[in-house]
Amino acid sequence: MDYPFIDGGVTAAKGFTAAGVHCGIRKNRSKRDLALILSDRPAAAAAVYTQNLVKGAPLLVTQRHLADGTAQAVICNSGIANTCAFDGEDKAEAMCELTANALGIEANDIIVGSTGVIGPSLQLEPIEKGIPALAAALSKEGGADAAEAIMTTDTVKKECAVSFELGGKTCTLGGIAKGSGMIAPNMATMLCFLTTDAAIAAPLLKEALSETVEDTFNMLSVDGDTSTNDTVALMANGAAGNEPVAEKNGDYQTFRAALRQVCTAIVRALAADGEGATRLLECRVTGGKTAADARLAAKSVIGSALFKSAMFGADANWGRVLCAVGYSGAQVDVKGVSVTFRSAAGSVHVCEKGAGILFSEETAKTVLSEKEIVVDIVLSDGQAAATAWGCDLTYDYVKINGDYRT
Amino acid sequence: MDYPFIDGGVTAAKGFTAAGVHCGIRKNRSKRDLALILSDRPAAAAAVYTQNLVKGAPLLVTQRHLADGTAQAVICNSGIANTCAFDGEDKAEAMCELTANALGIEANDIIVGSTGVIGPSLQLEPIEKGIPALAAALSKEGGADAAEAIMTTDTVKKECAVSFELGGKTCTLGGIAKGSGMIAPNMATMLCFLTTDAAIAAPLLKEALSETVEDTFNMLSVDGDTSTNDTVALMANGAAGNEPVAEKNGDYQTFRAALRQVCTAIVRALAADGEGATRLLECRVTGGKTAADARLAAKSVIGSALFKSAMFGADANWGRVLCAVGYSGAQVDVKGVSVTFRSAAGSVHVCEKGAGILFSEETAKTVLSEKEIVVDIVLSDGQAAATAWGCDLTYDYVKINGDYRT
Repeated sequence: MDYPFIDGGVTAAKGFTAAGVHCGIRKNRSKRDLALILSDRPAAAAAVYTQNLVKGAPLLVTQRHLADGTAQAVICNSGIANTCAFDGEDKAEAMCELTANALGIEANDIIVGSTGVIGPSLQLEPIEKGIPALAAALSKEGGADAAEAIMTTDTVKKECAVSFELGGKTCTLGGIAKGSGMIAPNMATMLCFLTTDAAIAAPLLKEALSETVEDTFNMLSVDGDTSTNDTVALMANGAAGNEPVAEKNGDYQTFRAALRQVCTAIVRALAADGEGATRLLECRVTGGKTAADARLAAKSVIGSALFKSAMFGADANWGRVLCAVGYSGAQVDVKGVSVTFRSAAGSVHVCEKGAGILFSEETAKTVLSEKEIVVDIVLSDGQAAATAWGCDLTYDYVKINGDYRT
Repeated sequence: MDYPFIDGGVTAAKGFTAAGVHCGIRKNRSKRDLALILSDRPAAAAAVYTQNLVKGAPLLVTQRHLADGTAQAVICNSGIANTCAFDGEDKAEAMCELTANALGIEANDIIVGSTGVIGPSLQLEPIEKGIPALAAALSKEGGADAAEAIMTTDTVKKECAVSFELGGKTCTLGGIAKGSGMIAPNMATMLCFLTTDAAIAAPLLKEALSETVEDTFNMLSVDGDTSTNDTVALMANGAAGNEPVAEKNGDYQTFRAALRQVCTAIVRALAADGEGATRLLECRVTGGKTAADARLAAKSVIGSALFKSAMFGADANWGRVLCAVGYSGAQVDVKGVSVTFRSAAGSVHVCEKGAGILFSEETAKTVLSEKEIVVDIVLSDGQAAATAWGCDLTYDYVKINGDYRT
C-alpha cells in the first residue's frame, strides 16, 4: 500500500482548482477564512459526517446535496460553525446559492462546511463580498490557500496527495484537512476535503470512503470530544480517463489502498498537530478477539487522559495502558496482554502476560522522548488488529481550551 | 433527606475504632501508609468494585471474604496498588492473615484494599512490622489517621458522618474516602470505607449500597479513567440496637437516604479535590427520557475535556455542553435543550431550545468564577433526572500526571 506521495493536496488531481481568501468573517485580516474547491466537471461524491446528535447546519445541507451522489464544488468558511443558530440551514443554503451563481453551477452540487464558534448567527455579507475574489483566485496553486482558509487552532496546514494507476492511467488522490482539538465543538471541528481524478461510481465511492473512515478518522482522538460539524467529503471527477471503476475489482482495491494511504497520512498530521500536542501517539493492537475488540482497546488507550499525560512526561507508565485496555469494553484476557513502547530511538518491552517486567528506566526515557511514539499492545485473544492515533495531553491543551472564546 | 452531619467519619458509629500509621511502604516517614478499621463485633458487610477487567488483587480477595456477607475489619495500604503483580493475591491474603492474627479475628472477615503504583510487588515486611503498632493505636480518634493513611495525591482527607433514627434508636453512618484523579490506575484509585451501627440484613445492605453507588460514585468523573482498584465497602455492626432492618420498610428507606447523603457528600469532596482541580462541577440533568439517558447526558458533559477546560477558564462556553449532550449516546431532542450556569454568585441562562440566547458575558464570568459551579440542563424528552460531579481540567492535572512515577 505504498504509493508515491506527490506535491500538493486538494488540487493535485486533474480538473480541480481551489482558492482561499480573507472575506471578513474573522477579524484578523491576515487569516484566510473562506475556501473554495472546484471540479471542472460534475464529480461522483460521497461524505461521512459526525455521529453527534447535534449536527451543524452545513452538514444537513450537504447531506441533501449529496443525495444524488454528485457534487462539483466545496465552499467552506472558518470562524463561525453555523451550528445551534436558528437560521443555520437557510444560511448554509444561501452560501451554496452565492457560490453556484458565481461559478455557473448548480447549488445542489455544492458541499458546504463551516468551522468555528457554535451559536452565533453566520453573517452572509462577508461571504457575499468575498466570493467574486474567491472565484477569481481559483487555480492549481490555490490548494494551499484553501488549506489555510479552513484552519482554526491548527498550527500547520494539512495537505497531501498520492499517485497510483488504474487500468494503465495515472490517477491522483489528494486532500486538505483541518482539526486540532480533532473533534471539538469550538474552533476545532475536523474537516477533510478529498479530490481524485479517478473515475469511480458514486455508490462504490461512498462505500470506499465509509470503510476507510472507520480505520482512519474514526481511530483518531485528540480529546474524545466529537464535534458537531465533522465532515470528510470526497469528489471523484474522472479526469484521469481511467475505465470507470464500477465493481469491486483490482482497480477498486487499488483505489481503496490509495484512499487509505492519504487518509492515514492526514490523520497522523491531525494527531501530531492536536491542540497543545508535543508528541504523536500511535497505538497498535494485535491479537484481538475481533476487529471491534481491537479497535475498542486501541481507542481507549489513545483516549486515556492519564496515558496521554504520562506520554507528555515521557513516563513509561504501562499500568495506565493496561488499565485503559481493562475498561475499554473490549473482550480481553488481561493475563495475556503484553506492552512495548517504540520510537525512532529504539524500543522498550515493559509488560508481559499482564504483569510488569524489569526494564531500564533510562532506555524508556530515551524512547519516549521522541516526537512519535508507538505503543504496541499484543493481546492473546485472536488475530484481529487495529491502530489508533492521538497526541499527548499538555499544559497548552488546557491553555488553548480554557479561554478560547474570550 | 437532610440528616444532621456530625463530627468524625469511619469511627463515628458505635463499636468502630480505627488507626493509621506509617509502616514504611512509602519512603516519606511523615506520610501514614497503613490504615485499619475494626468493628467490635462481626458486621453485615457489602462492597461494590471497579468494572475494569483488570482488577487489583485486593479486590479479588475481598470479594471472596465478603461472599458470606460478613466482615469485621478493613486493612488498607497506600503506596503500592498490589495490582498486575504475579504474587498479588497471595500478598493480599497474607495482609489479612497478619491482621487477623493481631486482632484475634477471622482472616475471612477482613476487607483488604491497596492504592498506589501498579506493577511492583508488595513487600510484606513493613506491613508485618507495622501491624502491632496499628492494632495498639485503634481508637475512636483514629478515624482521621486512617483517612490520612489511605491518601495518595489527595490534598485533603475526606470523612463525614450523619446521624438518623431507626425505630426510635439513634444510628450513625460515616466513612472515609480517598481518590483525587478519582479514577486512575496510578496513585489515585478511589476507595471508600463506610461504617454504620445500624442493624440491617446483609442482602439489603448490599442492595442499598449498589443502588446508592449508581447515583453517587458512578456519577463522579475526574478524568474518565476507571481504576483497577476502586472499592466502596460498607460494614453495619448493629451496635445502635435498632430492630434489624430485614425488609424494605420505612426504616430501610431512612437508611438508604442516610447512606445516599453520606455518599453524595463524599463524592462532592472527591470531585472538589480532583487532581489539579480549582472548581467543583455539578451537572444536573432534568427532563430526560429515561434515567439512563439522563445519566449518560450528565456524565458526558462532566467528562468532556473541552467543557472542563472551559470551566477552568470561567468561560460560559455552552456549545461544549450541547455538543457533549449530543455525543453522549442519550436519546435527546437537541432542539429541546436548555442550559443555565449557576453558582453562589447567581445564574446565567445561556441556551434555550438548542440555540444560544443573548446573555451578559460579565455576569457569566462572575457566576463561573466561583469554586462550585452547577450546570443545569433541561431536556424536553421526559421526566427523568440525574446529577453528575466532576472538576475542571487544569495545568496542574497535567503536571501531576505527566511525571508521577518518577
